[in-house]
Amino acid sequence: MESVSDSAALTGAGAFGPEAAGPDLLERYLLECRSLALAEIAAFVPTDRPHAGRLYELMLEYPLRDAKGLRPALAIATCRALGGRLAGVLRTAAVLELYHNAFLIHDDVEDDSELRRSGETLHRRHGVPIAVNVGDGMLALALEPLLDNMRVVGMGKALRILQTVGAMARASAEGQAIELEWIRDGLWELDDRSYLRMIYKKSAWYTFVTPITIGALVAGASDARAALLRRFAMQLGLAFQIQDDILNLVGEEANYGKEIGGDLWEGKHTLILIHALRASDGHDRERAEQILRKRRPASIPSTTAARLDALVASNDLTAEGRRVLVESLVATADARTEGDVRFLKQLIDRHGSIGYARAQAQRRARHARTILDQCSQQAGFGPSVHRMFLERLVDFVVERTR
Amino acid sequence: MESVSDSAALTGAGAFGPEAAGPDLLERYLLECRSLALAEIAAFVPTDRPHAGRLYELMLEYPLRDAKGLRPALAIATCRALGGRLAGVLRTAAVLELYHNAFLIHDDVEDDSELRRSGETLHRRHGVPIAVNVGDGMLALALEPLLDNMRVVGMGKALRILQTVGAMARASAEGQAIELEWIRDGLWELDDRSYLRMIYKKSAWYTFVTPITIGALVAGASDARAALLRRFAMQLGLAFQIQDDILNLVGEEANYGKEIGGDLWEGKHTLILIHALRASDGHDRERAEQILRKRRPASIPSTTAARLDALVASNDLTAEGRRVLVESLVATADARTEGDVRFLKQLIDRHGSIGYARAQAQRRARHARTILDQCSQQAGFGPSVHRMFLERLVDFVVERTR
Repeated sequence: MESVSDSAALTGAGAFGPEAAGPDLLERYLLECRSLALAEIAAFVPTDRPHAGRLYELMLEYPLRDAKGLRPALAIATCRALGGRLAGVLRTAAVLELYHNAFLIHDDVEDDSELRRSGETLHRRHGVPIAVNVGDGMLALALEPLLDNMRVVGMGKALRILQTVGAMARASAEGQAIELEWIRDGLWELDDRSYLRMIYKKSAWYTFVTPITIGALVAGASDARAALLRRFAMQLGLAFQIQDDILNLVGEEANYGKEIGGDLWEGKHTLILIHALRASDGHDRERAEQILRKRRPASIPSTTAARLDALVASNDLTAEGRRVLVESLVATADARTEGDVRFLKQLIDRHGSIGYARAQAQRRARHARTILDQCSQQAGFGPSVHRMFLERLVDFVVERTR
Repeated sequence: MESVSDSAALTGAGAFGPEAAGPDLLERYLLECRSLALAEIAAFVPTDRPHAGRLYELMLEYPLRDAKGLRPALAIATCRALGGRLAGVLRTAAVLELYHNAFLIHDDVEDDSELRRSGETLHRRHGVPIAVNVGDGMLALALEPLLDNMRVVGMGKALRILQTVGAMARASAEGQAIELEWIRDGLWELDDRSYLRMIYKKSAWYTFVTPITIGALVAGASDARAALLRRFAMQLGLAFQIQDDILNLVGEEANYGKEIGGDLWEGKHTLILIHALRASDGHDRERAEQILRKRRPASIPSTTAARLDALVASNDLTAEGRRVLVESLVATADARTEGDVRFLKQLIDRHGSIGYARAQAQRRARHARTILDQCSQQAGFGPSVHRMFLERLVDFVVERTR
């Protein structure tokens, strides 16, 4: 009778009895970890604090939308599979989820994304200034539970957790810097290695490597085992991100929670597109790069649509207004069109780039599986629902549709 | 023969000999602290790190522009005046300067400011995405030297410094949240108390209270003395911010480093404007609030000016382009005009609001002076160049032109 938590009282009906090995183990494990992490987040985000505007309320907006809660589950499963206690890892697991959501808010600003988890992005709903500040507030708030960790896991582990989280935030900013500069410079002559390094830093590090490292750290794993698990995490993290790029092209919006094909409209660097460009002949490649150097067309918030007619009719323009109009004209004249995106899709189809990416993801998932099997043969990593979750996750990462 | 640093080798020519009491003590003290802090920052910002784009280089862009370096100087002077060592406080002083510059980058994005320290703001120069990410990278990087502090000041003090910095970042986000919501909601019916609470959290806390708290903490000051110094810091911090608002209206751009009158164009909440509105009769007040509900007019980056003529001539507009044009029209039609800003200035003049703000700043500076005198009568806070710096600073805060 195993459960995610140490006591049945924490998990309701003791969800992980012998029937746990059923096909929905993964979903149930994620769900339980997510609800544990959310309860923890609710405990350290003080929504009733006076003189802070709606700061804390908005911190909860993304976490409360439907999400997998992968990071807390990974930290908890790794810790528990190694014999560690839930109470030791839960707070840090929740902090990782908070960091993730802060990164999402700033990423959405940086990419000017429209949808996140099937809802409008925070900056589209509340404006860029408030969104940037809410993200900053979350990063500041996260420090407190990490310091409070001293009382939970002791000084030595708490300090190593702080270092691990600091290194994570730094790696994410480095990965993001690489990608933003590729975008700004219109750089597309990239090999797979450059792409993989970028997503390793930007995504795999904080989504897989850090949660698993922290689970191992709290459980008191040896350095050798922690290193092995980090390699597992890296392979799985790369597979996860490549699959994410695939889903962006072939997924269904209701499952995926973001606009399908959004990466092409955005001109995002994915393994798929990098492969398609590399496989193209000079002429196609030139046209594709030209398309990718254009901007994403701006969309008008629906709320202002009603005001348009009156203004068009009145034709009342100041000199400054005229200048801004022409500026917008420049921006839109340079934007990608439906035809452009169709051309990119055709290139991708013609060169089998989705298949290429899928094979890469699967190869990495297989590699991750091999490492996990290797871990499982060692003492102290015996069969458990937690280890089973990690095993199922390897398949999920490349088979998922959400 | 006193100097900011413990050894003359650190300070060059031993700048603070007996002649230190001269009128330029303040400038020289600031200058020396700033150069010490910059050297420290340069040591933990690794500009040669591969695979991070220009992330680290851009982190240094604001710190290297001309600035007062008030925060490191406050931390160093407080620590040294209380008998603490430079080596104990310098690293944290530099981290505070790094935080400050990260906040500035994000603030400039949030206010869409054009100038910072006499140069173009980071997001105007490199785009919002890169600017937001550079700020995030700085916040992440700041954690490392604070953890490394363990080896410098010992475990207990290092942890209290971490808590102090975490609380600071959180208070700043709260203060910023309050102001951003006032802006979004067009809220102007505010009493002085609300305004003072906002600037206390948004500005005084991280500019004065935290540096002085950390100086006292490193020097091992008693709780009572630390509390007294925090009250000093709060009064001085409020005076500083009120003076900043005054300079924005009456200063000279070359000294001030920002656009003069920019606060009125931005519709920023200042004690001056809040007073002028409160003192106005119904009709003027209504007109002022109407003006303040408008937007700041957008300005066109000079680089695109050259492309305008061709586009106007070609008249080549897609359907999407037309919609965005009209959207811009809405934005500009709603923007504040020269006449609007002139009206606000007249209101401020008519009601003596600058004099009112100046009196408030001076009253708080006097209060700060009284508290500092009280500290000076206690043992362990004897005469020194560091105490003298703090005394001079009280006058500088309300007399400064930069």
